[in-house]
Amino acid sequence: MSERLIYLPLGGAGEIGMNAYVYGYGKPGRERLILVDLGVTFGDMDSAPGIDLIMPDVRWLEDNRDRLEAIFITHGHEDHVGALGLLWNRLRAPVYTRRFTGALARMKMEEAGQPVDKLRTVGARPEVVEAGPFRVQFVPVSHSIPESAALIIDTPAGRIVHSGDFKLDGTPIVGEAFDPILWHEIAGEAPITALMCDSTNVFTRHPGRSEAVLANPLLDWVVAQKQMVVATTFASNIARLKTLADAGTAAGRQVCLLGRAMRKMVTAATEAGILRDFPRVIGPEEAVDLPRDKVLLIVTGSQGERRAASMQLSMGRYLGIELKEGDSFLFSSRTIPGNERPVGRIMNNLSRIGVNVFDADSGLYHVSGHANRPDLEAVHDLLKPRIVIPMHGEHMHLREHAKLAQAKGMISEIVTNGTMIDLAGDRPRVVDEVETGRIYLDGNVLIGAMDGVVRDRIRMALNGHATVSVIVDENDEVLPDAWVETMGLAAQGRAGVPLARHIESELADYLDRVDDATVMNDKKLDEGVRRIVRQVSMEEVGKKPEVKVIISRLAAD
Amino acid sequence: MSERLIYLPLGGAGEIGMNAYVYGYGKPGRERLILVDLGVTFGDMDSAPGIDLIMPDVRWLEDNRDRLEAIFITHGHEDHVGALGLLWNRLRAPVYTRRFTGALARMKMEEAGQPVDKLRTVGARPEVVEAGPFRVQFVPVSHSIPESAALIIDTPAGRIVHSGDFKLDGTPIVGEAFDPILWHEIAGEAPITALMCDSTNVFTRHPGRSEAVLANPLLDWVVAQKQMVVATTFASNIARLKTLADAGTAAGRQVCLLGRAMRKMVTAATEAGILRDFPRVIGPEEAVDLPRDKVLLIVTGSQGERRAASMQLSMGRYLGIELKEGDSFLFSSRTIPGNERPVGRIMNNLSRIGVNVFDADSGLYHVSGHANRPDLEAVHDLLKPRIVIPMHGEHMHLREHAKLAQAKGMISEIVTNGTMIDLAGDRPRVVDEVETGRIYLDGNVLIGAMDGVVRDRIRMALNGHATVSVIVDENDEVLPDAWVETMGLAAQGRAGVPLARHIESELADYLDRVDDATVMNDKKLDEGVRRIVRQVSMEEVGKKPEVKVIISRLAAD
Repeated sequence: MSERLIYLPLGGAGEIGMNAYVYGYGKPGRERLILVDLGVTFGDMDSAPGIDLIMPDVRWLEDNRDRLEAIFITHGHEDHVGALGLLWNRLRAPVYTRRFTGALARMKMEEAGQPVDKLRTVGARPEVVEAGPFRVQFVPVSHSIPESAALIIDTPAGRIVHSGDFKLDGTPIVGEAFDPILWHEIAGEAPITALMCDSTNVFTRHPGRSEAVLANPLLDWVVAQKQMVVATTFASNIARLKTLADAGTAAGRQVCLLGRAMRKMVTAATEAGILRDFPRVIGPEEAVDLPRDKVLLIVTGSQGERRAASMQLSMGRYLGIELKEGDSFLFSSRTIPGNERPVGRIMNNLSRIGVNVFDADSGLYHVSGHANRPDLEAVHDLLKPRIVIPMHGEHMHLREHAKLAQAKGMISEIVTNGTMIDLAGDRPRVVDEVETGRIYLDGNVLIGAMDGVVRDRIRMALNGHATVSVIVDENDEVLPDAWVETMGLAAQGRAGVPLARHIESELADYLDRVDDATVMNDKKLDEGVRRIVRQVSMEEVGKKPEVKVIISRLAAD
Repeated sequence: MSERLIYLPLGGAGEIGMNAYVYGYGKPGRERLILVDLGVTFGDMDSAPGIDLIMPDVRWLEDNRDRLEAIFITHGHEDHVGALGLLWNRLRAPVYTRRFTGALARMKMEEAGQPVDKLRTVGARPEVVEAGPFRVQFVPVSHSIPESAALIIDTPAGRIVHSGDFKLDGTPIVGEAFDPILWHEIAGEAPITALMCDSTNVFTRHPGRSEAVLANPLLDWVVAQKQMVVATTFASNIARLKTLADAGTAAGRQVCLLGRAMRKMVTAATEAGILRDFPRVIGPEEAVDLPRDKVLLIVTGSQGERRAASMQLSMGRYLGIELKEGDSFLFSSRTIPGNERPVGRIMNNLSRIGVNVFDADSGLYHVSGHANRPDLEAVHDLLKPRIVIPMHGEHMHLREHAKLAQAKGMISEIVTNGTMIDLAGDRPRVVDEVETGRIYLDGNVLIGAMDGVVRDRIRMALNGHATVSVIVDENDEVLPDAWVETMGLAAQGRAGVPLARHIESELADYLDRVDDATVMNDKKLDEGVRRIVRQVSMEEVGKKPEVKVIISRLAAD
């Protein structure tokens, strides 16, 4: 059998978040592998209550880690690097990044107690990383974090371009511009077999706008405000922080950064030499002492995160700073779908205080970090790949992107998490379906999404919980007075007595007449008790709770 | 003391949903009262897991029901009439509605086993309902359900206009147009003391569009589709159903309604004489037998409701109907903030099948049912009220609407749930703050939002649950082998043994050395055990679970 060039997304293809893409080259089943990105996504109450972080299940890669040559991280966003520390131990391959991304990757490794000497900093093209049969170059692209890179992955079966997250920005304020001449050169060097391409904004029909267009509107906005001014955006959007801070300074205000992530990012970007001329920042204790019209706060929490600065400020005070009627608050950010409610909560809290709220709807105070539909078409035209494989999108984005590429005569297929394709032949060919899924960080342990832990939590949240203690005495007689405790259930039902007491009295009837065979059998007794509890609860309050029955059998002395 | 004209929102002012507004006239504390609307809102996993419906806490009104003359329902949407059946028993006043609204109110009363003879059907103005000191007229306005009405509330202290939900639509397809001449006449009869006004769309800067503008785009759209066509919208949007059905018929398709609410609404509207010439509809079994390009399905579930037709169809089949590649699915609706995730799930499910999805973003297939900002200004100009009190909005909407009215020289105040104002003087004056809140329908019982039931559910969902059974024997000795069961917790922690077993062994240590005073005191023993469980669990898996300790004390024979 001849060599295959495989592509296998483990995360990010069919969702926006937790990116992880495997490439391989070699004889079937013996391909040498590289991994591109290892990100997280965030849980929500609907699908993953109590879960701190969600990661791709990398079991397939773990099982094949003797074949894994290297891990490449395209940029420092959480959905690309967030799982590196938590999962590295399962993969144990060297990790290649550019410098600033490396600083963030280092924090991830340190936090998780992993060896930071596995991190290798790489310069941009023409520098090449050799990883088994792969020759990989980092090509700067513009995005909403500095040093984002596309990867050129040269293989014996052809050249692949992995776009990473990108936009076409010629004037990105901080970090490198998207350079069409460079890409033209790359396309001219060798035909591009396949382009794996960001699909986030495929439904946005107008061309993307540059970060630079925000400078004047933001300055005008700050100048127009009369009291304290607050702006929130993603901490990693260094260019935006710079634009906001410059606007504040130009308007005669002192800049104060609130939120740990914000300060960490600015420090990391400054140390990496990416961020220059950032205005001097003051601490919150200094900000409090200044006249309100001399302060600009740049704060975390644009997505409504409960503990971040935006929510805290909206609820009263944060680090001694209190917002007042007549202050102004700007969301220099887009609300990620699903976060509308918490963001709305901040806006309404601010409204109650009398703070004037401004959002990105006007288009003046925010631009996206991803390529829009016409930009994607421009990249297709520029690179002329034979095959386009959409990635970084929900299924509907991948589908729309594939249609877009097909309409231009390119080969395009929807490849979602777990599907392995071979790109070595004339057309991409599905060669395997790999079991994939999600791993949860729950407290301080990693659990599988299918372990049942989260399912049980959701059930308790929807149905409530009842605990029953049943005692079987030394003579193998069950005591009829079982004890019931409920949680998350109405205290009283139709009978007009406390629900737990009512269940106990119905259980007493049941235990009084239950046969010996059932009493002697834990499983049967458990089932019998559980049935009564659920049935009585349903009649009384219309809910079938989750039930835990504890049977204690007293040993004869 | 002189008479007061009071206004007291119990729901709907500071939120969008569960509307309930009290008006009163008379000596302080002895005002005769009327209630306008009695609606519900819907729960979500974040704030109210397991809760079916959320209603305003009407305790204040219940405590004063001897003063309540009547309940008026402006229109048949759930957020205006949904709580009528469930709460009527607490209020027991006659209920006035127009005819179609009455048919829906009747269903609510019947479902809850309340007396339908308390419902009184009223004609539109000039018909007048006398309710104590109030003279109330229903004035037709256009909205996204037929027979929506504003109320003219004449009192000895002046005329109030309660807008209800409305838009300025001269050609609403079904139901009555907004009639500026009629409103001009109303404004001319007597000066309007106060306008209580819908604020939903105050942030939408363009004038609203008529339902009629959708007819051609929808027809063009249906004609352009090649296979099965599905459209979803709110079941109560009778005009939209008519436009969609007419488009289907004109395109040579048979119309099939899927979803119980859809069929109920069409029947009710037809019986009320509001809906005429609705095309003959076919059942799903007929639809299955027709060629795919001869069918238009109009289905429920535009907000991503789990059990509704849209979600079910997206997951495979529903009532024998299966969607296929090349079919078309239209959201003729806006996604209510907070529902983005489930709606996105439907879209991605459909994408996987290969169904072409169309949404309302183009503006061609949906218009809002609420007055936009310029429409609100037009109504202010038309009615020239002395006072504008914004309602039907979150705090930020009320604030924006108040600013809009103030900018035109009108008096305007933000009045949120629980604040009682007196409108009899020169300016609105806060005269009381009433305790208010939310009531939950949980299964089949009503519970208070502050009862702790939902708080416990959220805690279990976030932290998991542990049950401990401790036995104290006949000699008042605690048995050290306590039994632990966990739910919603990782099976195994850092110690590498099952979590429950590990907790048990730590508990054995504790119970072995616990002093007699603690053993003899339920509360102390409970606290001691709970502390150990939470501490061990935190060390092992990083979670502090909710803990139920059951202490069984064996009686000496």
